[in-house]
Amino acid sequence: MQIKYTIGVDVGGTNTQLALVDIAGRIVARDYLPTTGHPDAASYVKALGAKVTGLVEANGARGQVKGIGIGAPCANAASGVIEGATNLPWPSPIPLVDLVEKATGISTVISNDANAAAVGEMTYGSARGCRNFIMLTLGTGVGAGVICDGHLLSGSRGFAGELGHIFFHFAADRSCECGRYGCLQTVASAGGVVETARRMLAADVRPSALRDIPAPELNARAIGEAADAGDRMAIEVFDFTGRCLGEACATFAAFTDPDAVILFGGVARAARFMLPAMREAIEKHALHIYRNRIKVSVSSLPDSDAAILGAASLPFINTTKS
Amino acid sequence: MQIKYTIGVDVGGTNTQLALVDIAGRIVARDYLPTTGHPDAASYVKALGAKVTGLVEANGARGQVKGIGIGAPCANAASGVIEGATNLPWPSPIPLVDLVEKATGISTVISNDANAAAVGEMTYGSARGCRNFIMLTLGTGVGAGVICDGHLLSGSRGFAGELGHIFFHFAADRSCECGRYGCLQTVASAGGVVETARRMLAADVRPSALRDIPAPELNARAIGEAADAGDRMAIEVFDFTGRCLGEACATFAAFTDPDAVILFGGVARAARFMLPAMREAIEKHALHIYRNRIKVSVSSLPDSDAAILGAASLPFINTTKS
Repeated sequence: MQIKYTIGVDVGGTNTQLALVDIAGRIVARDYLPTTGHPDAASYVKALGAKVTGLVEANGARGQVKGIGIGAPCANAASGVIEGATNLPWPSPIPLVDLVEKATGISTVISNDANAAAVGEMTYGSARGCRNFIMLTLGTGVGAGVICDGHLLSGSRGFAGELGHIFFHFAADRSCECGRYGCLQTVASAGGVVETARRMLAADVRPSALRDIPAPELNARAIGEAADAGDRMAIEVFDFTGRCLGEACATFAAFTDPDAVILFGGVARAARFMLPAMREAIEKHALHIYRNRIKVSVSSLPDSDAAILGAASLPFINTTKS
Repeated sequence: MQIKYTIGVDVGGTNTQLALVDIAGRIVARDYLPTTGHPDAASYVKALGAKVTGLVEANGARGQVKGIGIGAPCANAASGVIEGATNLPWPSPIPLVDLVEKATGISTVISNDANAAAVGEMTYGSARGCRNFIMLTLGTGVGAGVICDGHLLSGSRGFAGELGHIFFHFAADRSCECGRYGCLQTVASAGGVVETARRMLAADVRPSALRDIPAPELNARAIGEAADAGDRMAIEVFDFTGRCLGEACATFAAFTDPDAVILFGGVARAARFMLPAMREAIEKHALHIYRNRIKVSVSSLPDSDAAILGAASLPFINTTKS
């Protein structure tokens, strides 16, 4: 038997995407199914298993699949179970790895979206060959996948790398959805960017295109478009975001001595306005032994396929099932 | 050949200790030599090699030694080189691993003191069987050895785990020997404890035994003795230190999802005055998924032997030499 493929499954709140991916990271075939509308998790997995088998059979890949990798919210990589995912329609815990393995007969691993993105970048993207880097996912929340010494950090229960919830002093007066104050996520997520813009708009009277956006439509994408169009205040919003990320990365450096930090997710689309401040803040705030060492860049995987490629890369790492 | 022993070498600025240690962590025999007084590093290693060979031969251990583990300041575990150690008498870089291997014919690994302490605790101490913990060394400086998924985090150049130099907001106005402000070390090292005491003494007029200690003699040990004797302000000094450590550990938790934090080093002698505040701060400040999970304790290795046992444990881990 020759291993030619993996299968990536990206479980979203509304839709589940899956793809047959070759070992070079090319998507050979893809399919999807609704995540919602099934009476229970077992029915969903039955439908998912049929889709997986369909992909394998239609592409003559039987016996050539190394494994299935699932990227899902709140996934515990160690146990293979989804725990407390508020945006999935079934009660937790969901023993998804066991269910999928039984439905397909294919070895399955799972990880959260941010971890999957990091492994995808290391397997197929710009971090190929890099054994020490941090992938920061800047979207609705802020997540991270930390690769140290070539390993994806998992931790006692698979909850390593929740770097969106480290305390960040600039954010001390910002409340986080987790119930605490000061999480990095409150400045570096899409909502954090909007909050920064709101505060800047309130703090001075400069003209800005942002003032013309109705409050409900002031989102990170709109602020990014204003920055693209040259709006000074919109650019400053991302400059501030980059500075915060850089200061946080100065602390992250002391943890894992990384070679690179890679940004990913919706907010990273405005990276060109964040990277200069981010790099400057890292060099200014990192301990001397980490200076002039840490490359900061944006994921090289296409936005639309990164989640599925991240999931498809998971069978290449050794996740420890307990 | 049966492997029965390792050799631990603890390189201090004045003396170098070495010991033949059996696989259960018992010190079978020990020796020492002065670190200073040799014309160069090669001469020092020659003397060290003779001591190692002497220990092996005198105890009938030839062919039964798994390896030599060296704990040394500023040791780069990845390259085997000591870089920029200001308290060693030779110019850097010192390719100590290569030199010792050539002098003894025994496979050698090196790590910094804090990492060695962590591996020692995992190999011989209370962390046996624990795959996720953080060892905090609280002494002249603050160091850490981070064990995640059973691995000692090394990082790109072996500088992972410099947790004494993360930015800690309570310390924003304290200058660190590294040239920056706000390092955790400025509150949690021996000098940090003294600085906290000085500030408390200046901030109010309460009577305290600490006021009777002449300024040059006000050190962490003296403050610990005052706390032992029931001095209220001395106890508050360590309570504050514990609170700072707990808040910092709440951030560390988000990095590696640990089961335990273990304290080690001179300042940890006053642990009974720090642990309650430390535990309280972790539970208050950690993200909910880490609460009621992280055990905080003090190293179970005897203070006098912990460094040498840590060094002796290093051959049991896979350090990657580049």
